[in-house]
Amino acid sequence: MTILPTCTSQSRCFDGTIGFYRHFSDVCRTEMRFSVYLPPQATGATLPIVYWLSGLTCTEENFMIKAGAQQFAAQYGLILVAPDTSPRNLGLPGETETWDFGAGAGFYVDATTDPWNAHYRMYTYVTEELPALMAAFFPGDRQRQGIMGHSMGGHGALICALRNPDRYRSVSAFAPIAAPMGCAWGQKAFRGYLGTDSTAWQAYDASQIVIHSAWNQPILIDQGTADPFLPQGQLLPEVFEQACAQAGKELILRRQEGYDHSYSFIATFIADHLRHHAMALR
Amino acid sequence: MTILPTCTSQSRCFDGTIGFYRHFSDVCRTEMRFSVYLPPQATGATLPIVYWLSGLTCTEENFMIKAGAQQFAAQYGLILVAPDTSPRNLGLPGETETWDFGAGAGFYVDATTDPWNAHYRMYTYVTEELPALMAAFFPGDRQRQGIMGHSMGGHGALICALRNPDRYRSVSAFAPIAAPMGCAWGQKAFRGYLGTDSTAWQAYDASQIVIHSAWNQPILIDQGTADPFLPQGQLLPEVFEQACAQAGKELILRRQEGYDHSYSFIATFIADHLRHHAMALR
Repeated sequence: MTILPTCTSQSRCFDGTIGFYRHFSDVCRTEMRFSVYLPPQATGATLPIVYWLSGLTCTEENFMIKAGAQQFAAQYGLILVAPDTSPRNLGLPGETETWDFGAGAGFYVDATTDPWNAHYRMYTYVTEELPALMAAFFPGDRQRQGIMGHSMGGHGALICALRNPDRYRSVSAFAPIAAPMGCAWGQKAFRGYLGTDSTAWQAYDASQIVIHSAWNQPILIDQGTADPFLPQGQLLPEVFEQACAQAGKELILRRQEGYDHSYSFIATFIADHLRHHAMALR
Repeated sequence: MTILPTCTSQSRCFDGTIGFYRHFSDVCRTEMRFSVYLPPQATGATLPIVYWLSGLTCTEENFMIKAGAQQFAAQYGLILVAPDTSPRNLGLPGETETWDFGAGAGFYVDATTDPWNAHYRMYTYVTEELPALMAAFFPGDRQRQGIMGHSMGGHGALICALRNPDRYRSVSAFAPIAAPMGCAWGQKAFRGYLGTDSTAWQAYDASQIVIHSAWNQPILIDQGTADPFLPQGQLLPEVFEQACAQAGKELILRRQEGYDHSYSFIATFIADHLRHHAMALR
């Protein structure tokens, strides 16, 4: 039984509307929050949807406020949807102790370990519950969905698309955690949410999934060369690049000279990404 | 003796650079902060400068992060400069008690009352010290300056321009406090910073100054019709409109249907404002 989300604030933007919502999630069994930009074309007809998955520590607000995406969504007639990055305020042990695990760090997996498995089910939340909400209460067309994200959310976008070529038509990412099994962030999250047996981790590692995925659309990734997490080995675009080459997938990996990991980088190239999605979704 | 500002962070954005700075201000006699966007054209030649003055509670960060202005500054070759909205951390009595007076609420005046007059000198800081810094340490052209702002900063932009037609060539504002002597925000600030004799207030009220100003350029103002501060009588664009008509000044006052007081509103129309400045400054 899906319940109407509550709108907590609304602002007009580029002749459309930014709205912030909260609702009780059947999948996460707690209140969840998300934001939606409805472009001016949202007057009756259903419109394609592009989901944005944010990075560690972010909420449903960052993208809507900082990326400068609305002008291009308005131009192309795209609905933008940005969920929060995890359930929150559950009082689970360790939920808020570190910034890269628990609240703000759901990693877009369905947790299988206790106590996380009761609520931390971001993969199903993003791929099933949110699209159902968008079709039920917004003029969203579930047949025309794209997905993108940043850092942890870039990882999320890649795994959602590669595992569900029937549900998404386009995918892109900014500085994604492209091979989480090979980096400290990913290992910590997967161990915590999925347990110590790393065979269970493969289903959530884009560089593993891409080998056998039926995905057949171009994958757009931008990566700043001055990103401090790149030399730390947290992002590993080269691993994903090699996996795509091995799998024969079309990857457009652009190394952007001098750009870092911030929204200044995202804002600079968001127009290219939304054009990439609009071309596939129209 | 002007000292080099310290850069606290830098990010590449639209082929230019966003930088955040702190420095010891001779005018405010304390540390002040500001942000600068240098467009890609900043390679040797001096460039026109557009100052952004923020509203109540804001810092030097809000505009650079939320307005989406960099893409247009890069297009037109404009330097953007956004100062903090007041001195901070001085330990003055009442400095942080209310959000509309003291820290974050400098109101772009030179305070004359004790203890504010020792530090709260935002008018001179913005009109003299910042332009000197921009010429000394950045490729800023003091002969080609424009100024704009939002709410309290819209008031600031209007008074800086109207009092200094020799220093600024262009001015614009989003939802400015256009007649501060007639509204609660302005009266509280002017009483606190300038004392109870309201004759001293007139030098900082755009609707008063415009009557005798030598300003002879078009003034662009956008005002959202769904702005909650409009029916509260805090903004009073109609008072400024009448004063401009009386003074024979060219005012382009656009009432934007359904827009509120937020950065969603600013982001929607920032392109128009930067075009307005670029036309005057080239």
